[in-house]
Amino acid sequence: MQPCYEHIERQRQAYLEELQDLCRIPSVSTDPAHRADMQSAAEWVAERLRRLGAQVQSLNVEGSHPYVSAELGSGERTLLIYDHYDVQPASLSDGWTSEPFEPQVRDGYLYARGVADNKGNLMFRLQAIEAYLQTFGDLPLRVRFFIEGEEEIGSPHLPAFVREYPERVRADGCIWESGRRSDEGIPILELGLRGILYVELRLRAKSRVLHSSWANIVQSPALDLERRLHQAFLSLIDAEGRPFFLRDLVSQPSLADLALLPRIPFDPHVASQEYGLPLLPGLDGVEALRRLFFEPSCTLCGLRVGYTGPGVKTIIPNDASAKIDMRLPPGISPQIALVRMQQHLKQHGFDDIEVQPLVGMHAARTAPDAAIVRAAQKAVQAVYNQAPIIYPLMPASGPMYDLCQAQGTPAVCLGATHPGSSAHGIDENIAIEDYFAMTRTFCHLLREFAQT
Amino acid sequence: MQPCYEHIERQRQAYLEELQDLCRIPSVSTDPAHRADMQSAAEWVAERLRRLGAQVQSLNVEGSHPYVSAELGSGERTLLIYDHYDVQPASLSDGWTSEPFEPQVRDGYLYARGVADNKGNLMFRLQAIEAYLQTFGDLPLRVRFFIEGEEEIGSPHLPAFVREYPERVRADGCIWESGRRSDEGIPILELGLRGILYVELRLRAKSRVLHSSWANIVQSPALDLERRLHQAFLSLIDAEGRPFFLRDLVSQPSLADLALLPRIPFDPHVASQEYGLPLLPGLDGVEALRRLFFEPSCTLCGLRVGYTGPGVKTIIPNDASAKIDMRLPPGISPQIALVRMQQHLKQHGFDDIEVQPLVGMHAARTAPDAAIVRAAQKAVQAVYNQAPIIYPLMPASGPMYDLCQAQGTPAVCLGATHPGSSAHGIDENIAIEDYFAMTRTFCHLLREFAQT
Repeated sequence: MQPCYEHIERQRQAYLEELQDLCRIPSVSTDPAHRADMQSAAEWVAERLRRLGAQVQSLNVEGSHPYVSAELGSGERTLLIYDHYDVQPASLSDGWTSEPFEPQVRDGYLYARGVADNKGNLMFRLQAIEAYLQTFGDLPLRVRFFIEGEEEIGSPHLPAFVREYPERVRADGCIWESGRRSDEGIPILELGLRGILYVELRLRAKSRVLHSSWANIVQSPALDLERRLHQAFLSLIDAEGRPFFLRDLVSQPSLADLALLPRIPFDPHVASQEYGLPLLPGLDGVEALRRLFFEPSCTLCGLRVGYTGPGVKTIIPNDASAKIDMRLPPGISPQIALVRMQQHLKQHGFDDIEVQPLVGMHAARTAPDAAIVRAAQKAVQAVYNQAPIIYPLMPASGPMYDLCQAQGTPAVCLGATHPGSSAHGIDENIAIEDYFAMTRTFCHLLREFAQT
Repeated sequence: MQPCYEHIERQRQAYLEELQDLCRIPSVSTDPAHRADMQSAAEWVAERLRRLGAQVQSLNVEGSHPYVSAELGSGERTLLIYDHYDVQPASLSDGWTSEPFEPQVRDGYLYARGVADNKGNLMFRLQAIEAYLQTFGDLPLRVRFFIEGEEEIGSPHLPAFVREYPERVRADGCIWESGRRSDEGIPILELGLRGILYVELRLRAKSRVLHSSWANIVQSPALDLERRLHQAFLSLIDAEGRPFFLRDLVSQPSLADLALLPRIPFDPHVASQEYGLPLLPGLDGVEALRRLFFEPSCTLCGLRVGYTGPGVKTIIPNDASAKIDMRLPPGISPQIALVRMQQHLKQHGFDDIEVQPLVGMHAARTAPDAAIVRAAQKAVQAVYNQAPIIYPLMPASGPMYDLCQAQGTPAVCLGATHPGSSAHGIDENIAIEDYFAMTRTFCHLLREFAQT
């Protein structure tokens, strides 16, 4: 692989710069104002794949943001690479050190919205394939890229894409969009992820929206609306933030799964310090991991009463809403979680609150002995001189069930982020050395997966 | 005036249609996405004034939305007409019966965002001048139009405009942008308005924004942030929603002011039914009016924790904010209200909450014996065969102090809205008969003010 490494080293500056070019496009999928940027990002990625020599198609399904589907190479094995070009919203006023869509290098880290989640992973995988091609002339297997623009909004059209174009995602193994290393620098292979149900609770008073100059004589419903949403949310969770209404559906992890946990170097106290948030009581590393992988969560992501947009609106408000994110371990589907939540609110007297589901995805699992897992282990061993850490799941979510598990494709996460990458947060970043170590690892993976 | 009336009658359909044209422009000043619409609305108004024969200039001050300044006619007296082409935000999803920017006539009412506040008033005044000119050849006085695009965001550049172009607002009397009739159909003259201080309270946790998949092990600050803002707001008000921290600054109205109140036909119970909101206890008509005119208010217009924008953002939030509107009677300046609020929050232990002022305006008063008031009384008498109702103030706010009182110009409100016009609310509307009765009244006012 030495010649491959040398190619990467020669291209180091060019590869970093093109990653920054992609990060400059504010491809925020949740915000209709960025529709043109979404188009630009998809075209940028399609064009880059064409320069790699791939057969590329931009495809829309039912009004979706464009999917970039590409194929190159040939061989017995087919590798699916799943990435996304969309990112979470971000603005300097959130507290960023530098403009989120003006990438900046500081002390060996590259800062930009999307650089960790997931434009960095997308680009090192593509660049590794280029390095392999430049070095060896052709690939030892078929590679399929499936790159979407809706990961950050819950991949709403992905199941329809898979139904319509099953041959474009068919593969023997999949490298998943995310992936990171431990604090100690050891790559982590995650063999699945939790599901998610994201809902909006909506509550409306019987009154009209009124000009606020009437406030001296009428009773505003604002605080009642707020209290009621607050109480509804509190009714959903126990003292540790777990959703009451899913309690009887939570199953204990298998002994094999439990056995993986002590090998994972995770200190929740370090994580807590890093994030500036106190831990729930009674957590050692194993118990924290058990909860993160195998228990559901219920998070208040946002709460609104009245007008919370820019500037000034002089009203006595008449409505309120709350955004709630639930992570679901294997065995609890988003459908059952939604029904349970609606039943729970009704039983607790909150039938005036409407539950609007915004995102729902199944949890997914990959068997630890799948060829793609073994190939990833060997590739990490070759570059890092040590075995990767195996996570049975990751706490986050994604459409792995629909894209992979339902098609029988084992999937694994292997990527260039680190514990302080701040995905979805301010000052999102990757370490530049991680980026190139992963580029080299991916060159090995291409060969190992062809042979394993 | 009969020939003037006949001209208005002949132009009835054309005048209504051009009002609807103006209402089709979504000139929402608070939203940067509507910047081009603001420009279009200003140009539309300037062009319409040019067709009237006025000398028109579009002027910007320090990056403001355009001011449309126009002048026509001559005579000893100068009348200033103050209107605005900007409107509050509105969307069908707020609960409108028809698209807010697609005007619709139903049962003699015209529905559209801005038709009551204040595009209707702007247009009938302009059309009355046209009718007068068409009928009599020229005007008996000089008319100055001062039309801004920032009334709904607190007229932030108006004081600078007045400083820079004092001759463009100099006048012997001013007809103010708003104005309405009673339930019984009698026009109301309002001789002033309350001031306003609109602030945003901001609160930030020590933690970073975190990906919500970590929720199983950390304590989210979301509910604490919400509770703290809630408590801070509660600390500001007494049981009837009055701001505690301004209590000792409230002065009782004069006997002359109090004597006006029983003559005002206002039943707070009818208003309460109309709005769907319960009244505060112990209110008869006079007491309700005393509070609306001479007491300050403190209204929670919006409260936000975390992400409340469109779609999905999967975070453990770390910040919260609240928008608070305070109406200020004569004698309490926005400056003193801001200082008192900051002191109050500090004294009550909320020094972690930042107070960001967004809008501040002084209250204003006009003497009941000013020429412009007497002219308006005569004009109403001529068309409605009865005297107008005199309000010492109106409960709402506007830049009357800076534009008029500080220049020694008496100002009065005389306009075409009615108690159910729903300014700032859903299904904003005017009655078409009110519109044309006010057009006729304004023709009289031009003559009366020249002669009074």
